[in-house]
Amino acid sequence: MAIRDPPLLNSKGVHQPYALRTVIEVHTDEGLSGLGETYGGAAVEQRLRRGAGELVGLDPFDLNGLRRRLGGDVLADERAAGLLAAFEVPCLDLQGRAAGRPVCDLLGGRVRDSVPFSAYLFYRWAEHPSDPGYPPDDWGEALDADGIVEQARRMVARFGFQSLKLKGGVLSPEREEEALRALREAFPEHALRIDPNAAWTVPTAIEVGRRLKGVLEYLEDPTAGIQGMAEVARAVSLPLATNMCVVTFADLPPAIAAGAVRVVLADHHSWGGLRGSLALAAICATFDLGLSMHSNSHLGISLATMCHLAAATPNLTYACDTHAPWQVEDVVEPGSLRFVDGSLSVPDGPGLGVALDRDALARLHEQWLRCGIRERDDVAAMRVVDPNWGGSRPRF
Amino acid sequence: MAIRDPPLLNSKGVHQPYALRTVIEVHTDEGLSGLGETYGGAAVEQRLRRGAGELVGLDPFDLNGLRRRLGGDVLADERAAGLLAAFEVPCLDLQGRAAGRPVCDLLGGRVRDSVPFSAYLFYRWAEHPSDPGYPPDDWGEALDADGIVEQARRMVARFGFQSLKLKGGVLSPEREEEALRALREAFPEHALRIDPNAAWTVPTAIEVGRRLKGVLEYLEDPTAGIQGMAEVARAVSLPLATNMCVVTFADLPPAIAAGAVRVVLADHHSWGGLRGSLALAAICATFDLGLSMHSNSHLGISLATMCHLAAATPNLTYACDTHAPWQVEDVVEPGSLRFVDGSLSVPDGPGLGVALDRDALARLHEQWLRCGIRERDDVAAMRVVDPNWGGSRPRF
Repeated sequence: MAIRDPPLLNSKGVHQPYALRTVIEVHTDEGLSGLGETYGGAAVEQRLRRGAGELVGLDPFDLNGLRRRLGGDVLADERAAGLLAAFEVPCLDLQGRAAGRPVCDLLGGRVRDSVPFSAYLFYRWAEHPSDPGYPPDDWGEALDADGIVEQARRMVARFGFQSLKLKGGVLSPEREEEALRALREAFPEHALRIDPNAAWTVPTAIEVGRRLKGVLEYLEDPTAGIQGMAEVARAVSLPLATNMCVVTFADLPPAIAAGAVRVVLADHHSWGGLRGSLALAAICATFDLGLSMHSNSHLGISLATMCHLAAATPNLTYACDTHAPWQVEDVVEPGSLRFVDGSLSVPDGPGLGVALDRDALARLHEQWLRCGIRERDDVAAMRVVDPNWGGSRPRF
Repeated sequence: MAIRDPPLLNSKGVHQPYALRTVIEVHTDEGLSGLGETYGGAAVEQRLRRGAGELVGLDPFDLNGLRRRLGGDVLADERAAGLLAAFEVPCLDLQGRAAGRPVCDLLGGRVRDSVPFSAYLFYRWAEHPSDPGYPPDDWGEALDADGIVEQARRMVARFGFQSLKLKGGVLSPEREEEALRALREAFPEHALRIDPNAAWTVPTAIEVGRRLKGVLEYLEDPTAGIQGMAEVARAVSLPLATNMCVVTFADLPPAIAAGAVRVVLADHHSWGGLRGSLALAAICATFDLGLSMHSNSHLGISLATMCHLAAATPNLTYACDTHAPWQVEDVVEPGSLRFVDGSLSVPDGPGLGVALDRDALARLHEQWLRCGIRERDDVAAMRVVDPNWGGSRPRF
């Protein structure tokens, strides 16, 4: 699928006019089908098609068999873990449908009926420079503290979020700090976080991190790598979070030994699925690490899956990230997922509790065929405006 | 229940004439029931009855709710984890029965159809000195290397085990080493292990551990505590295993940081149940620790449960311990669990795949009422022979 996506800025560049996702549907000989959603693009599609060929005849309860058939080192290889996740979720959807139980019940049962999410604030342009005919959304641009506060006001008014996350690494740390302080003033009770996506050097991260003490609930990936993060962690009291230096199970032992992070962002798409994410949660509980949840641009199948995981994870103590407010197109039938006070109710139906809107699916697949984008490339999208843009990090 | 148990020796003393176990049966309003088995004795019974009172109305799929209702810190408190496990297994049995699936399918599916177990060799007496009227079994005494080899021959001939475990800490390390070398000679292809149950000092463990290099697959709990084990680990190349210095999730971070052990023995009875044991397995996979399985004297419900767990745990790379060859009484209907080549087939039926023999249950409950033993006390049983026996460790 290709879904319309606004020109959201980050340390690598800017979102392209379309975000790519893949919908996976697994059919059984009993006439049931299970849904899943993962990353998109030509390379992912190729891997998924190759993987799917290995799975004919597999029992959807045999998740260990799924892992064995797909192969790869899911503990150390993010791609292998992602491939497993792509098929594990539809199998769990199938298990739930077969047992007449929501997926969260297969994961240990819901500890919460509704899952809090965070407002994902982005510096952004009003329009995509790469595609002048592309109709803009009505959010307008946000390129300074006032723009971010206005964006937050609107997002909070519409969705009720009680936590605000700023995608950083775009402007200078000073200007991003200004935006955070403006948010703090405008939303004195909201939890705040910033994610510069490793755009800062260690000294910058230490300097800014020290100044932001008491302002943020956590500072996400200010700098790159376990070693760099550990240096920052030793110098600042603010908890550091990551979805960049700890992305596989193999990253956990060195990160824990170095004391590099205090919060890990789970993501079922890249941690081997829901069972892998529960294993990550168990490790976080054991090693006294906080647990939050990462998001890429996504559709409703991923959102529902995140809900089930969050519902069944006792130690998920932070509001989850989501790009949902930026997405205007979906493949699930409308109405099943609606934000109330910044939270989503966990779907009650069997499996994931969402149904595929096949007309929407066909339309978004058409869009994929037409849009010409085959791999996400935020650097290339930025080069349309700045031909010398390299997207290299750290920038500040 | 109280079940007949032979006079098996260990570093604390000797097994009493009866081992105590509890059978848990959970009933649902849909007319299904789920089985579980845990430790026995008066204190356990009291905790279980108190716990059971909290669970009326609970959905058996709501294992997080089970944990919440039972309370306690299951990550750090072995008793709380044991209480959770006692009710978690019957809930999973119920889930399996409701879904028409064996429990291993709810744990990710079987990676093996049969589960290898280890012969559990004990120094032992022929009869219980505390109970002269108690009819002896036909194994006879084993108090030296010849006796242990003979016991092993008989156990291997009857059950087909391909791994041999000697319960140590009974005789001097020199005499136990002699027994191991005699086993090595008599069974050149069998994996060997010894478990002195922390009966050795650090210097003894280092000395014996160095001499046994190449003889054992692992050396289990030669000495007490994470620090002592870490000292031994630094000095010997043999992998150290434990079910004594790492018994809760809270023990894992210090043990891992100290490099105290290379193999952890899982035990679903004490690690919060099957899901807790899978979490332990995930931690072992992540931190490159081996995984084996511990056993206390048990009945067939525990044995079936161990089978399902082992079947669904890819990184369980050692044969599991079991006291099964020493148990002559059971509460499950005969025939469902039979050793072939030292392995048990994973039961195929829904849930745990074993059924309660209610006559046997009543008989073993009568035996509990009659036998007078209310708590396991190997020290007291030894004092019948040696009034000065203290059971203190280290002894050597």
